[in-house]
Formats: sequence, C-alpha cells, structure tokens
Amino acid sequence: MSQLKNDAICAMDVDFAQWYTDVCRKAELMDYSSVKGFIIYRPYGYAIWENFQQELDRKFKETGHENVYMPMLIPTSLLQKEADHVEGFAPECAVVTRGGLDELEEPLVIRPTSETLFCEHYAKVVNSYRDLPKKYNQWCSVVRWEKTTRPFLRGSEFLWQEGHTVHATEEEARNETLQMLNIYKDTCKDLLALPMVTGLKTEKEKFAGAEETYTIEALMHDGKALQSGTSHYFGQGFAKAFDMKFLNKENQLEYVYQTSWGVSTRLIGAIIMVHGDNNGLVLPPRVAPIQIMIVPIRQQQEGVLDCAYALEKELKQAGLRVRVDTSDKSPGWKFSEAEMRGIPLRIELGPKDIEQNQCVIAKRNDGTKQTIALDDQLVTTIKNLLNQIHDEMYAKAQKHLQEHTTRVQTKDEFVDVLENKTGFVQAPWCGDTACELKIKEETTATSRCITNEEVHNETCICCGKPAKHIVNFAKSY
Amino acid sequence: MSQLKNDAICAMDVDFAQWYTDVCRKAELMDYSSVKGFIIYRPYGYAIWENFQQELDRKFKETGHENVYMPMLIPTSLLQKEADHVEGFAPECAVVTRGGLDELEEPLVIRPTSETLFCEHYAKVVNSYRDLPKKYNQWCSVVRWEKTTRPFLRGSEFLWQEGHTVHATEEEARNETLQMLNIYKDTCKDLLALPMVTGLKTEKEKFAGAEETYTIEALMHDGKALQSGTSHYFGQGFAKAFDMKFLNKENQLEYVYQTSWGVSTRLIGAIIMVHGDNNGLVLPPRVAPIQIMIVPIRQQQEGVLDCAYALEKELKQAGLRVRVDTSDKSPGWKFSEAEMRGIPLRIELGPKDIEQNQCVIAKRNDGTKQTIALDDQLVTTIKNLLNQIHDEMYAKAQKHLQEHTTRVQTKDEFVDVLENKTGFVQAPWCGDTACELKIKEETTATSRCITNEEVHNETCICCGKPAKHIVNFAKSY
Repeated sequence: MSQLKNDAICAMDVDFAQWYTDVCRKAELMDYSSVKGFIIYRPYGYAIWENFQQELDRKFKETGHENVYMPMLIPTSLLQKEADHVEGFAPECAVVTRGGLDELEEPLVIRPTSETLFCEHYAKVVNSYRDLPKKYNQWCSVVRWEKTTRPFLRGSEFLWQEGHTVHATEEEARNETLQMLNIYKDTCKDLLALPMVTGLKTEKEKFAGAEETYTIEALMHDGKALQSGTSHYFGQGFAKAFDMKFLNKENQLEYVYQTSWGVSTRLIGAIIMVHGDNNGLVLPPRVAPIQIMIVPIRQQQEGVLDCAYALEKELKQAGLRVRVDTSDKSPGWKFSEAEMRGIPLRIELGPKDIEQNQCVIAKRNDGTKQTIALDDQLVTTIKNLLNQIHDEMYAKAQKHLQEHTTRVQTKDEFVDVLENKTGFVQAPWCGDTACELKIKEETTATSRCITNEEVHNETCICCGKPAKHIVNFAKSY
Repeated sequence: MSQLKNDAICAMDVDFAQWYTDVCRKAELMDYSSVKGFIIYRPYGYAIWENFQQELDRKFKETGHENVYMPMLIPTSLLQKEADHVEGFAPECAVVTRGGLDELEEPLVIRPTSETLFCEHYAKVVNSYRDLPKKYNQWCSVVRWEKTTRPFLRGSEFLWQEGHTVHATEEEARNETLQMLNIYKDTCKDLLALPMVTGLKTEKEKFAGAEETYTIEALMHDGKALQSGTSHYFGQGFAKAFDMKFLNKENQLEYVYQTSWGVSTRLIGAIIMVHGDNNGLVLPPRVAPIQIMIVPIRQQQEGVLDCAYALEKELKQAGLRVRVDTSDKSPGWKFSEAEMRGIPLRIELGPKDIEQNQCVIAKRNDGTKQTIALDDQLVTTIKNLLNQIHDEMYAKAQKHLQEHTTRVQTKDEFVDVLENKTGFVQAPWCGDTACELKIKEETTATSRCITNEEVHNETCICCGKPAKHIVNFAKSY
C-alpha cells in the first residue's frame, strides 16, 4: 500500500489515461480482479456509490417508485422475444450452460439489462387500468462482455439501477421518461457537482428496442464526452412482443406504454475525470465518504489528540463525515494522502492552534487555507464551506463545459474544433444515419445528442443537404 | 390479481406447505420467474428486506465494517484453492462457459459465496499489522443450484449479505465471529420479533472450509427449525491456501485469522412461518412496509376522505409508514386484504367516528379493537401500540419456542417428542458423526446446534457411549 502512495501519479497533460488509472488505484477506489473487466469496488469507491444511491433512491420513492429484485438469469428464448433488443445485447452476453452437475437444456444469460424480465412479470400482474401505472426500480449489477475495459467507464460487470415502468397512456409514459431524465440531471448537479448536457439520441445511438432514448452527457477534463445515464421511451414495442395488455376504462384491451431508465457506477468515472487534478481526486462534498480530515500536528504533545477527537466528535454530531488521521506518518505525508483521496476539507490542528483556540482549514478544490476560531460558529462555518466547495466545483465544471462547446457550420470548422479545442461540437445534420457513420469514420466523433436548437436554412456538414437538427458531436468514452 | 385475493388461503393445519406458498403469493411478496428456483422479489417482499437491511447495515458500520462489491464471477481455479470449500460448493455452481461470442478458456462460476474473492483481494492489500483488521461486508445475490426450491427458504438465487474479515490475532477473529452472531440474534429479536436459538454447528454441519460455524436457528409454527444465519471462524485455513500473510509487530511474517458471516432473504420465510396465521401474514411492525392502513368507511360521504388524508399526513410526519385504502372495494374486503398482507394496525374511520372525533384501531396480531380519540395523543398512542405489538409477537414466538423445546435422555423419548410434540429435541450425543448420520437417517432430524449445557454422566442416545454434548436436534427446512 504505502509503496503505491509513494509513487506520484502521472500528470494529466502527460497521459490522461494513465492519470485516470493511477487515481482509481492510488485513491483506493477499486482494484482489478483475476477476471478481465471485473473490478473490485473497494470501500472508498463503494461508499461514493452508496451516498449517491441513497439520495437517488429517496427521489425515486418520493416520485412513487417501488424497489424490486428480478432474477439474475434470463432464458435465451426470453431475451429473443424483442428483435432489436436481442440484436443489441446478444453479442455481449455471458452465458450459463451448466447448473449444478448438469448441462442446461436451455442456456441462461446473465442479465445485461432486465427489460425482458420486467415485461414477462408485468404481463402477468397487469390486467386492468386499476393496476397501472406500475413503477418499479431495481438496484443490481449487470454483465456485458466487453473487449476493451476501463475501471468504472466500461466494465464487463457494473453496478447500476434500472427503472422499468408501464402506463395506461402514451402521455403518462412520456412524462415519466422526461421526469427521470430530469431527476438524473438534477441529482448529478446537486450531489456530484456535474453539469450535464441532455437531449435525444439519434436513431443509431438509441437503446436496443427503444422508440426514443434521452441521455445525460458530461464533458471530461480531456474534452471527451461521457454518456452518464439514459431514459428510454418504449412506446408499445415490448408490450406487443410480450403481450402486455390491460383493460382500459372503456373495457377494451390495450397495450401498455413503457419506459426504462438507468444510471451506473460510470458516474464515479465522471466524478474523477471532471473534478480531478494532478494531485489526485477532488470529491464533491455531498458524496465524499470523508468530508473532513483532521490532521493533528505534533500529535504526541499532550492535549493535541484530545482536542482533535473533541473536534471530530462535535462535527460527527452535526452529521458530518469526519476522521482524525492518527497514523504515524508525517503531517506532510498525511496532507498529500488527503489530497490524493480528494477529501474536501482538511483541518490542521497543532499545539499553537490550540493555544489560540483556532485551527487551519484547507479546501481541496482550490488549495486555499484559512484560520478559523474553535467556537460555536465552527460547525456552521464548515457546513457553509462544504456548500461553497460544491458550488465552486459545479461552476468550474460548467465553465469548462461552456468553453468547450462550439457551434460550427462546416465540416472544416468541425474537424478543426474537434482536433484543437476539443469538447462538444454542435453541427447541423440532415438526419441521415449514413452521414453520422461517415462523420464517425472520418473523425472518430459520434453524435452525443440532438440539441433543442431550431434549424434555419443550414446544411448538413457531411452531405450538404438541408439540415434537420443541430447535434452535439464529440469524441467520447 | 383480484382473483387471487378472492380465493381463501389454505388453512395451516390442513397443509402447512400450501399455506406457506399461498401466503407468499397472495400477500404479493414474490412471484415465480420462468427459471426454476429463481423468484421475483415483488415490492412488498423486497421492502421488508430493505427495512431489515437498513438497520443491519447501520449496525455493521457502527461496529467498524465497510461495504465493498466483489465480482459476481469466480474463476474455477480460484474456487478450487481451498479443498473443503470447493468440495462443498462445486456441486451447486452455475457455470458460465461463453462470454460474448467466444467459448471461455477457463469456465467461470457465479458466486455461491465469495470467500475466495475476498481472500485473493486481502492477500494483495494486507501487508502489515497496520493494515489489520480489514472488516468488509457485501450486499448482493448469490447462486446455488438447488434441486428442490421453495420461496425464500431455498432458492437457486437469493439476496444476502456476506461479511469477510481478517485479523492479526486469533482472539480478535474469534471475538468478531461472536460479535456478529450476537448482532444477528439481537437484530432478529429487536426488528423481526424472532427469538433465535444459537450455538455451534457440529463438524458435519459446519460451513465448507470453516473451523467453527455458529448458527442462529428459529422454530417455525409447524415445529421445524430454520437455520437463519451463520457466523464462521476460519482460523488460518484459507490464509494458508491463499497465502494471506502479514508482518506482525515483531516484524515476522504470519498468516491472518479470518471470519465470515451472513444472513439472507431466508429470514422473510422465518417471519412468515413464525408469525403468520390462517388469515395470512402477520408482519413485525418495525419492518412492515405499511405499518398502518387507514380504511375510510362510507368514503363517498363528504369529509371522510379529507379526514383520512389529514390523519395519514399527521402519521407520516411522525415518521410512520401509513396508507389510505381509497380503492373502490368494500370496507370488509379492505379489512381482509390488510389482514392478508399482515399490516400491524388498521384504522377504521367513518362519518360517525369523525362526528365523535375518534377512530377505531384494530391490531393485526391478536384481532383486538379499540376506540381512540383523534387528539394530540394519537401519534404517541399509535407508536406505543406498534411497540406493544412487537413485544406481544416476540413473547408469543418465545413461548412457542419454549413449549417446543424438550430435553430427552433416550432414543425412545427422542423419537416420541419428534413425532408428537415436534420442535427442538435436546439430547446427549457422543460427538461422533456416525451417530449424527444414523439419527438423521432414522428420524430425518438433524443436529441444529450444540447447546452450552454441561454433560453429567449421560450417554449418547444413538450409541450409548459417554456423551460429550447436549445437542439441539430438529426436523428442519
């Protein structure tokens, strides 16, 4: 362990990918397992997910959703019921062919996503409009066999939630799709300090089986986009494939309208790559497993540790997540370690501070320090500082996003921005998948989402035909 | 749905197994999926687990445990590293042989339990006594291929938590094993109103790879025992197989001492079979997803629903889980439904009650009713009633357990009690596995755990040799 920490992490500008991997491992967020693409979520990484999960789960319940748990294994025949869906997922499935000591008659697939299971269940339990809506969510892990994997960003197994709802009307289902998209966007802003660009995916990029897919996209420090969550409107496609019918108020049989939506531990990757710096992680205070690290100076001197523990107790009682670093390392070493782990506030407390009834507080996000009295205003001050850090982190990320979003009108401009300025490039597009594919082939940029901007007499940057949409393109993870 | 509820459930005395299945399905705790042994945890069943999980997780963290997430798949070679362990689990593994479009070089097993993964990780991250103890826990599902399955009691997939800890000394590891056993026992008592018998498993019944296994055993209404949780002391067995060494304070390399412990959704089965009655579920108030159901009488009359909603709001603000049943069913139907679902308190509220500023409260556990004023004491009264119900349910279960625990000295007595009185039969045993096997073969009863009772000149009920222990035997699930 100590050896790992001893090594500096790679500088972002030298090798961003290496910097990312260094941070993941040296901040002890994860470790590799012996199966490629399957990572271990270590306590510090898992706690970030837990904090996020808790708040998102609260919002789900507040908006009338209920948690369930569906089987981990799906019969291949069930997965094949919806044509687009199976085509999208079959190539990345892990397949169980033996159970106990027997070969299985029908191979089972470890869920890559659970639409088919929810459909089968809803077909059984929904009979009348009285049974609608059903708004279920599930927290679990899913398996998608990936060739190229990176911690949190793309793994053969990842943790996520998947919401699956069925409704009596198209309007209600469409509202649900957008409501969940907004909950994602707001929670990313309010909890993770991550600004998100939202919009519809193109036909080519939408979910296998969906009528429409909305996405939240974040912009990483290196100018690449990261799809961070999706919300799908299915219409009646799966309903027809799975015979999900209900008796409406007019006593007629009708197919249900359906949605699904999910976010995953990929968001941990977004936190790292949006907020991190050359000293390591910078964690948004509201999900940071440790919000405040108290570092005692000359801790062997009488009274120092007592004072540190008293402060810890006071902050803990105020609902803050705080620790005292009592290890036998030097204060300087402890400072670096707290920085590497992205702990939002560090409190330095030595004999002189105690004499003057004060402490020094350092903010991780901008490195500034201030001296603060150890009085009854301390808790309020610290809470305010944590909120301030959150706001500053969001503002910085928002500024980076704005500065790296460029509206272009020609392909030359497009290529130039993509190569030099990086980030989102907003360009007119005819709506044709062929152009999208060609742009990808030539530039490696993909369409991230369609903007709301109206098109006025512009032409597709690829084919020159009249443009239908202005699309956010970007290189992406 | 309504059709299911229309049918009465089977009476317990007629067919206990059928009663159990009826309750599981008609209280909408679960449903079957299309893969045998894999069930769907429906919202009402899952919410019970969530409420239990929340409190247990709080206790884990309070005692210094951290949550992690390990991969779902284990290489077969890794599972084979500890001889007893693989022998115990290999016959019930689900095996992944295809990933993506390729045959795997080495088959992967879906975790039946994760000792081997934790061992591999600990071997990497533990180097010095400074790194110890490591006390990790994981909430997940596991897969064990079962031939005979029953909802919650025995399934091919179930939800659980598995704690895995490593320590520098034997004493610390042994303390951990017992601490977790006691946390299980206390939480079952305080949250689920379930009295547990605790003790050591015999050699034959202990966990595959453990040095010692402690168990919590509950007694079902039909006189059968249910193993409800286990806590294992591993000594250094796995440590040697996985080379988990650390530098101790004397700077010498030493193997770690290890524990693991788990409880699962099987506890939902225990709740059903200990507390349930011929009207359905009886849920312990502290985990009941709905603690109070308000049933408006003559709900179409002006003011009735307003009053019901006002009451709901008041109780909700007091932190209680409450609903108003506004469906278009008759009050009698709603009563039965609330009973079937085991809702601890039912509030009846009609125009006459409202006129007199009162309501009628019915307790699910004993069917008693009382009239209570709608005044500022109401919240306190209801909270007290919920606590009272909890205590009554525990006392009743405890009485049943005591009345069905019989100390015997001979095999004839043993067989008689087992056949007629049922429950736990405490009998002297020589310590020989052969006798244990013979008893099982002849009576179908198994040793559940070794009691603390000292043996004075008694002889084994099977072979007549001097007894070493008094053992709790029982027929079991």
